[in-house]
Amino acid sequence: MGRRMRTRELGIRIGDMETGTCNAITDVEGVGVGHSTIIRGEGPLKVGEGPIRAGVTAIIPHQGNPYYEKATAAVDIFNAYGKAVGLPQIMHMGVIETPILLTDTLNTWIVADALIDYLYERYGVQAGSINPVVGETNGGFLNDSQGRHVRRPQVFEALDKARSPEGSGPVEEGCVGGGTPMAGFGFKGGIGTASRKTDYFTLGVLVQLNCGARGDLRIDGVPVGKILSEPRPRGTEAGNSIMMIVATDLGLTSRQLWKVAKRAILGVARVGHYGGVGSGDFTIAFTTDKRSVEEIAKGTGRPSGEGVRPTQNENYLGSVYRAAVEATEEAVLNALFKAETMVGRDGNTREGIPLDRVKEIMEKYGRL
Amino acid sequence: MGRRMRTRELGIRIGDMETGTCNAITDVEGVGVGHSTIIRGEGPLKVGEGPIRAGVTAIIPHQGNPYYEKATAAVDIFNAYGKAVGLPQIMHMGVIETPILLTDTLNTWIVADALIDYLYERYGVQAGSINPVVGETNGGFLNDSQGRHVRRPQVFEALDKARSPEGSGPVEEGCVGGGTPMAGFGFKGGIGTASRKTDYFTLGVLVQLNCGARGDLRIDGVPVGKILSEPRPRGTEAGNSIMMIVATDLGLTSRQLWKVAKRAILGVARVGHYGGVGSGDFTIAFTTDKRSVEEIAKGTGRPSGEGVRPTQNENYLGSVYRAAVEATEEAVLNALFKAETMVGRDGNTREGIPLDRVKEIMEKYGRL
Amino acid sequence: MGRRMRTRELGIRIGDMETGTCNAITDVEGVGVGHSTIIRGEGPLKVGEGPIRAGVTAIIPHQGNPYYEKATAAVDIFNAYGKAVGLPQIMHMGVIETPILLTDTLNTWIVADALIDYLYERYGVQAGSINPVVGETNGGFLNDSQGRHVRRPQVFEALDKARSPEGSGPVEEGCVGGGTPMAGFGFKGGIGTASRKTDYFTLGVLVQLNCGARGDLRIDGVPVGKILSEPRPRGTEAGNSIMMIVATDLGLTSRQLWKVAKRAILGVARVGHYGGVGSGDFTIAFTTDKRSVEEIAKGTGRPSGEGVRPTQNENYLGSVYRAAVEATEEAVLNALFKAETMVGRDGNTREGIPLDRVKEIMEKYGRL
Amino acid sequence: MGRRMRTRELGIRIGDMETGTCNAITDVEGVGVGHSTIIRGEGPLKVGEGPIRAGVTAIIPHQGNPYYEKATAAVDIFNAYGKAVGLPQIMHMGVIETPILLTDTLNTWIVADALIDYLYERYGVQAGSINPVVGETNGGFLNDSQGRHVRRPQVFEALDKARSPEGSGPVEEGCVGGGTPMAGFGFKGGIGTASRKTDYFTLGVLVQLNCGARGDLRIDGVPVGKILSEPRPRGTEAGNSIMMIVATDLGLTSRQLWKVAKRAILGVARVGHYGGVGSGDFTIAFTTDKRSVEEIAKGTGRPSGEGVRPTQNENYLGSVYRAAVEATEEAVLNALFKAETMVGRDGNTREGIPLDRVKEIMEKYGRL
Repeated sequence: MGRRMRTRELGIRIGDMETGTCNAITDVEGVGVGHSTIIRGEGPLKVGEGPIRAGVTAIIPHQGNPYYEKATAAVDIFNAYGKAVGLPQIMHMGVIETPILLTDTLNTWIVADALIDYLYERYGVQAGSINPVVGETNGGFLNDSQGRHVRRPQVFEALDKARSPEGSGPVEEGCVGGGTPMAGFGFKGGIGTASRKTDYFTLGVLVQLNCGARGDLRIDGVPVGKILSEPRPRGTEAGNSIMMIVATDLGLTSRQLWKVAKRAILGVARVGHYGGVGSGDFTIAFTTDKRSVEEIAKGTGRPSGEGVRPTQNENYLGSVYRAAVEATEEAVLNALFKAETMVGRDGNTREGIPLDRVKEIMEKYGRL
Repeated sequence: MGRRMRTRELGIRIGDMETGTCNAITDVEGVGVGHSTIIRGEGPLKVGEGPIRAGVTAIIPHQGNPYYEKATAAVDIFNAYGKAVGLPQIMHMGVIETPILLTDTLNTWIVADALIDYLYERYGVQAGSINPVVGETNGGFLNDSQGRHVRRPQVFEALDKARSPEGSGPVEEGCVGGGTPMAGFGFKGGIGTASRKTDYFTLGVLVQLNCGARGDLRIDGVPVGKILSEPRPRGTEAGNSIMMIVATDLGLTSRQLWKVAKRAILGVARVGHYGGVGSGDFTIAFTTDKRSVEEIAKGTGRPSGEGVRPTQNENYLGSVYRAAVEATEEAVLNALFKAETMVGRDGNTREGIPLDRVKEIMEKYGRL
Repeated sequence: MGRRMRTRELGIRIGDMETGTCNAITDVEGVGVGHSTIIRGEGPLKVGEGPIRAGVTAIIPHQGNPYYEKATAAVDIFNAYGKAVGLPQIMHMGVIETPILLTDTLNTWIVADALIDYLYERYGVQAGSINPVVGETNGGFLNDSQGRHVRRPQVFEALDKARSPEGSGPVEEGCVGGGTPMAGFGFKGGIGTASRKTDYFTLGVLVQLNCGARGDLRIDGVPVGKILSEPRPRGTEAGNSIMMIVATDLGLTSRQLWKVAKRAILGVARVGHYGGVGSGDFTIAFTTDKRSVEEIAKGTGRPSGEGVRPTQNENYLGSVYRAAVEATEEAVLNALFKAETMVGRDGNTREGIPLDRVKEIMEKYGRL
Repeated sequence: MGRRMRTRELGIRIGDMETGTCNAITDVEGVGVGHSTIIRGEGPLKVGEGPIRAGVTAIIPHQGNPYYEKATAAVDIFNAYGKAVGLPQIMHMGVIETPILLTDTLNTWIVADALIDYLYERYGVQAGSINPVVGETNGGFLNDSQGRHVRRPQVFEALDKARSPEGSGPVEEGCVGGGTPMAGFGFKGGIGTASRKTDYFTLGVLVQLNCGARGDLRIDGVPVGKILSEPRPRGTEAGNSIMMIVATDLGLTSRQLWKVAKRAILGVARVGHYGGVGSGDFTIAFTTDKRSVEEIAKGTGRPSGEGVRPTQNENYLGSVYRAAVEATEEAVLNALFKAETMVGRDGNTREGIPLDRVKEIMEKYGRL
């Protein structure tokens, strides 16, 4: 079983809801994803030279100009040992006005600056104030992070790809883009995505997974990490952080999106992470605003028994919350399952989780 | 298997850490718990008369005068469809100055007012401003909630018991005190508690469980709820809210306790709840301040490899976070496992979760 | 100059914007205000008997049923040494579902419980969960606060009055309702109100003033307090808290109302308060939702020069913020100017600010 | 009166408290400030070439290594139309680990990246994760902001100066460093500072002033802006944002510093700003931790009359709050008074406020 597979390919089904076509954040119409990846050099770390295991992942909120058609958005911060930029403005203004980029910690500000360039040069923005949004996790175990190798060309490449027709289809997962050097539960981690779909809305999640201790890993509730953690090889130190991006087509307010965003960490908790001291656990949620709540209220025809005005009844949010939890849990597992073993600087190695062992354990515990 | 058992009596062991002596919040020295319970009447609801299935649970932060020796404290609010009183002052001042009471939603304010009486009359407080802290969940499915039957005598009884020597020992769980009419994952819920203990600190959690849908229930990762949810009997509607109280003897600041408090909901998430639209999910954390961080820093002797001053290294919080997650997960299960079937107003019934079935399922899934 | 006068009657004009007809929160169509006041007894304090200088003020958000037509709302907390109830639910759900009551600190919970009664009995609410909203400041210098004399009859009276035709007209200010025993900048304080009106919206503020030290008082920027603070008479200790209620007819989201609410404290700052350690400074903002933002966007026709979609351009909020600051500043002064000298328990006295001296000082400083 | 003068040189005394020696943030022992300024070119804007009116201001929290001796810190965000980086981590971890830099909006991320360089190269930090803290306001009216001319050399110069002996003395104000192109109440703005000192603590504030509309300007309560706003010259559009840095030597917790930080905006409000829609109003507060609260408690000997433990009595914070308000108000005025007229790109001009007119008006209103 050498081929990396997604969670469902392995026969594991997280939660109860249906997925979208690609089971990816791109199932939310208009959302695009692009990666730029640098894997270059090996051997001892020489700061500024390599080895490089880095990249950047771009998420565009819709196919229009993000600055002039700002997407309603919100942020939840679970534990903020993290350098994400652009969040306070989202929280207060309730919108994002740029694509979202994900990268390696120390590359955050160069990448943010290059995103500004992109808005001026490729989106033709005419404005003296732009709020770039960049998230990060720390890839320093494999990457020459201090060398900050992700720069303007990579940012432009990732954004161009996200905006291309391919950017709206299936999303490459694992050791790509911002996820290139990342870890997950003591195994190799990286980028993962998943989606949920109902008659009323689609919701997709993309994560850059770099968190969790091996012994804590639970796959659909099965304590796989405990079984796989003996004997304990090098490179299984607990990773720390996770960036979570939630997209939906449902027209929610910033307050509602904030509450959706808050649910993402619960999906991560179900896999076994609980936000360590040095963890940066951030969720950014946005909407493409293509489906209206009023339409849903009509569809469900469910004013509360107490007679409250239908538009004030937020019961429909229940399934949106559930979708956020399920899709995040599955996106984390997809990142883990799709990431291949990687050797980085100083020979540091993160093993891809052995899928045959996972399958075997899941079977033993009556889940496959 | 008629007798209700705690999680560990059933052979289920949540997490990796050791428990305290009683596996209860009272393992944190000085903390006391007392319940007052009213179970009276049956048949059709007659507002103001009954049937009554209600009560109040008191948690005292230490054996001293809570007003004059205020406990450092913090609050996390996950979803605030809830009426808890006293929280903003805790958040800004960083202390609690009264015991904490838990009760039925509509009884919240009467109970808060009686708590004031208690501070004047039994604690001898001389002050013109007191911030009573009361949490609630909604017991209206079984109880004449609108009748607001929990009043001064019950508040005094619960507090007196919490302060008695018995209040510091094992804690009665299930259908007692504030938990009397509550539900959990479509079964009977109520009060539950658990604790974790290391060489450096003890941490205990007490919950008033009233949340979760039956199909979502996971016991140590096993989808027990899905199996037990067919056929679907009456009275299995999803409950909504959970009040979580976290106590520790470790001398933390209010900021640090806030971060500990944020972890409690992750423990609930692992059982299958994700904070519904109408859910009031509040955590109050406090410290008795008997163990010092400096002592721990000395004990672990682990300044970060980067040479940061030991007292600035918060790595020791990692195990405190883990303790909060584990103890909350187990407290939720204890509430569920100890709660007996209860018939309330209008014949409404909440079944206690069938422990023999639980055991059977856990065995089937290789966990017992 | 024995008669108490409002700020504008004295010739002082705060800010630049126009006021509504009554220069009161009731200028926002649908909003009603009612007071119930108890002034009874004199001499030494005998807890439970008096002297009583207390009351309750009710603000109804509109003429309909507040539970079934919930008003979009938000909360800002500047300093939370305060016991206000109902705030977390407003913050998360973005609505209020009851009238707002203001009273004396220790009366908070009895008043909240009576508000529940009122919703059941007079509004005919059928619901098992209600979130009463009550704010408070501490009147213990004049009132037998511990006696908690404001109870169901007063709550019903204030609410009935707020809902009567008179409730929507001019608002009685000074020593009435919840403001009865309160102070302001070392003088007598209490209830004050003011409003601002443009072509696009009306915004009104009502405060229960109990904050400020005498020496800090500034009237339209003139350091009146400094001049009036010598020699320093008894009863001029700094008061502590202020409750601020902001109402508008402009259809804003909860996020936007939160930002409007944040401006109220700036108006208070201009009078000289800065939120002391023991201060409870809370703002609740709500909208009656009668004027639409889209209408305004059309009216002003001012998409930003950068071409952002008109509905995403929040520039119109600028005048709403200004209105909130101006109306709060003036409401504070109205509370101060309308409040008469009051003698309370143990002969404690709060002097009404001497308006003739104020006028004289304002003239001296070139402002009248 | 051609020479620019500070507020007190003009004879205006803000508030009641004493200032430190320099009446600057550097009165807090250990704090250093350095500016790097570029003023180059004139005439039409040519993006990437100029004219340049820009710079960066560095504030070092103490003379040690900021990464290894992290200063306890906190953040308050009043209105977050702003791009400041590093704030979420301060909020959660309660510390800053780098100097603070202030610059022009679009230069934020390049400056943050150069700050990383500085920590590695000059502070010798060995760490894979650093949280740079950079604040900004928008200088695009005078500066080729899009050209992002502030880069590594300027960042290093400002930091080197802040760490030199001169960095701990008097602070240059007005059109220097990050404040170079900024505005204030329709006049020229920039950097301003002030301090307050008691027996128990010193507190200093530094602002980068870019906010306020001319008509709203109040100097010590006198409506100077109204008088100076006719006729209305070009270039008097309301500026938007203000960055406020508060330093103290008093050993406060992060929660307490957060509450101190919240007071800074009140000082700005007293000058007439109220946080416009497009305003970024951020406060970062930190402590050098040289004076202990216990010492103060001993000094004042004032346990509350109610007998609370002295260390739980936060009454001493009252004067810290007052100091923050007063020092911020004065720092804003100092920025305004010290800033000279500047002509920038496209001939755009910001006039320095005419001090002779200010003096004349203050005299007329009985204040000088």
